[in-house]
Amino acid sequence: MMTGVNLGNWLVLEKWMSPELFDGTSAEDEVHLWRELSETAARERFKVHRDSWVADRDVVYLAANGIELIRIPVPYFIFGDVPPYVGCIEYLDKAFEWAQRHGQKILIDLHTVPGSQNGFDNGGICGVCTFHKKPENVEFALTVLERLAARYRDHPSLWGVQVLNEPISQELWDAIDIPTRYPAVDPEEAAGSEPVPTEFLQRFYRDAYARIRAAAPNATVVFHDGFRIAEWKGFFTEPDFENVVLDTHLYLMTLTWSAGDHSLDDYLAFIADRFAGDVREAARDVPVMIGEWCLDTAATEATVLSGEERRSYFRRIADAQLRAWEPAVAWTYWSYKLHTDDPKHDPWDMGRAIELRWLPEELAPGT
Amino acid sequence: MMTGVNLGNWLVLEKWMSPELFDGTSAEDEVHLWRELSETAARERFKVHRDSWVADRDVVYLAANGIELIRIPVPYFIFGDVPPYVGCIEYLDKAFEWAQRHGQKILIDLHTVPGSQNGFDNGGICGVCTFHKKPENVEFALTVLERLAARYRDHPSLWGVQVLNEPISQELWDAIDIPTRYPAVDPEEAAGSEPVPTEFLQRFYRDAYARIRAAAPNATVVFHDGFRIAEWKGFFTEPDFENVVLDTHLYLMTLTWSAGDHSLDDYLAFIADRFAGDVREAARDVPVMIGEWCLDTAATEATVLSGEERRSYFRRIADAQLRAWEPAVAWTYWSYKLHTDDPKHDPWDMGRAIELRWLPEELAPGT
Repeated sequence: MMTGVNLGNWLVLEKWMSPELFDGTSAEDEVHLWRELSETAARERFKVHRDSWVADRDVVYLAANGIELIRIPVPYFIFGDVPPYVGCIEYLDKAFEWAQRHGQKILIDLHTVPGSQNGFDNGGICGVCTFHKKPENVEFALTVLERLAARYRDHPSLWGVQVLNEPISQELWDAIDIPTRYPAVDPEEAAGSEPVPTEFLQRFYRDAYARIRAAAPNATVVFHDGFRIAEWKGFFTEPDFENVVLDTHLYLMTLTWSAGDHSLDDYLAFIADRFAGDVREAARDVPVMIGEWCLDTAATEATVLSGEERRSYFRRIADAQLRAWEPAVAWTYWSYKLHTDDPKHDPWDMGRAIELRWLPEELAPGT
Repeated sequence: MMTGVNLGNWLVLEKWMSPELFDGTSAEDEVHLWRELSETAARERFKVHRDSWVADRDVVYLAANGIELIRIPVPYFIFGDVPPYVGCIEYLDKAFEWAQRHGQKILIDLHTVPGSQNGFDNGGICGVCTFHKKPENVEFALTVLERLAARYRDHPSLWGVQVLNEPISQELWDAIDIPTRYPAVDPEEAAGSEPVPTEFLQRFYRDAYARIRAAAPNATVVFHDGFRIAEWKGFFTEPDFENVVLDTHLYLMTLTWSAGDHSLDDYLAFIADRFAGDVREAARDVPVMIGEWCLDTAATEATVLSGEERRSYFRRIADAQLRAWEPAVAWTYWSYKLHTDDPKHDPWDMGRAIELRWLPEELAPGT
């Protein structure tokens, strides 16, 4: 079991995680931030942010606090070949240096693709989900994965390459009501948006596996479950797939959103029953990781508690989830840090959760 | 005894602490960075930096690690009334909110003044030291101090206001050879530069005390010793001065620079003899704080050690200095964080020193 964290909001922005980066614009997503800023402003804003969000000292911090694996979301324009976006491969290079220096492993996570795979803000462009409908998008994503795999294949800190973050399912698309929750700025750009079909995803995952495996024979290849974990039973079998991991994202807010606020005991029961059950069941078939999770329940109760009561609430949530993740090969908390003054976001910030002892002091007891 | 830290390189930049902020320019100091960047670029660069260098979560970290006092260097243009500089008072406001939320006290430190008081890069403009020669400069600095004192006088997190950081002495000016070590870009601008005379400093300190005390009756007023600690004997006496603290900055690199590399035992003896002696002697006369110090010895040995040997080296330096500071009312480490990939700067980063256990785990045993 590897304990880990996401470097969210570093190379792929999410407005809620650091709203000040969107100041002076009406942008709700990174694509529109690039579009609204002048070229000079965009270059400055992204450069200073990328230079400062994390650095060597942060990896020292993570290593000292029991973290072993760093999942790094990257955009499809990382190589700087998609104007007007400025690439950021040199930052991933740096992260590999830091990781090596401090004994960490890295999971590269392709978090956005042209046309987007989910319509979330974190897919780059709200309300748009057309990636899978254009063969040139798919081919471009495959070449990015190939180049990433080739670049780091021999780096001692490479753990794996994740093909695609959170391609959305029909069920989740309907539950969230993507067009309403994440309205597209330009309806024409969003035309034809729809969830990513399982049939497409299976083909894409096979193709991506072949390309990554050819470029990096020893890398772990990670596949997000696309919010349909039960549908992968029997899919990732040897010899077609070797050294692969199925990634599932488990957030307690999904319970709150679908069925309202619950008591702490209810959340603990949900973790022990549904979360643990899903992880255990999937892990019988293929190695599983929980690539995103955090302590937030999104319940009002979590925001009104203070002091020791608040600590105890989150600590019990933490202990229950860590127990549920035991059958997995790895987990990575979402996320390392946030810059928001809204206390309801506090449990998303792993650094804060460590300092406030919401997480157990020794995260990696085996090390 | 209050344990503390400096938020260096936040509202007053020092190139060596985050060189990337100076990319694309030939600037060696903050004044020239503002001059070389276009207005759009400067606004973006400073805004993103100020938004991101520290935030609420950092104060959570400091509180969890035994810090009680935060010294915040601020520039003389903090109120935004000196074009082309963009003011930053709203960031100091935020720091006060964070400090209150997490039980911290703040020492506001006027770190730069028009014309500069030392010719260091951290005074804003290398090789220039003419502040004391122009009455309008002096009056402007006094109004800034007055406004700062008035703004935060009733804030529960205000501990004190420091009149002026590091006005340079003749002795240090000569030892460092300021014109050579910090060459001025524009010789005309540097014309007439010279160390700050003690006579001027005494008058300025009296005036500043009166203005701050009138604006904030309960604030501690802090005076840097101007690198001439022995000269203040009998100066800060009641009733002329009440609730004041004399600030001295003690860096081991001064020994290395003046007399070459020493062994660890030599540094420990120097701390126990000179540093402890100076602090003890001054503290007989007036409450003393060590407003800047760190673990660096600037000796080659400190950079070649690794692992447990490196930890032990710095831990012994730390323990010796913490013992030497015991007669003081407070100390503030320089600095909270740095973004440099040069390991020789590691001991300047308090967060790193905490995580690597170069500093004792319980910094504030009384709390």
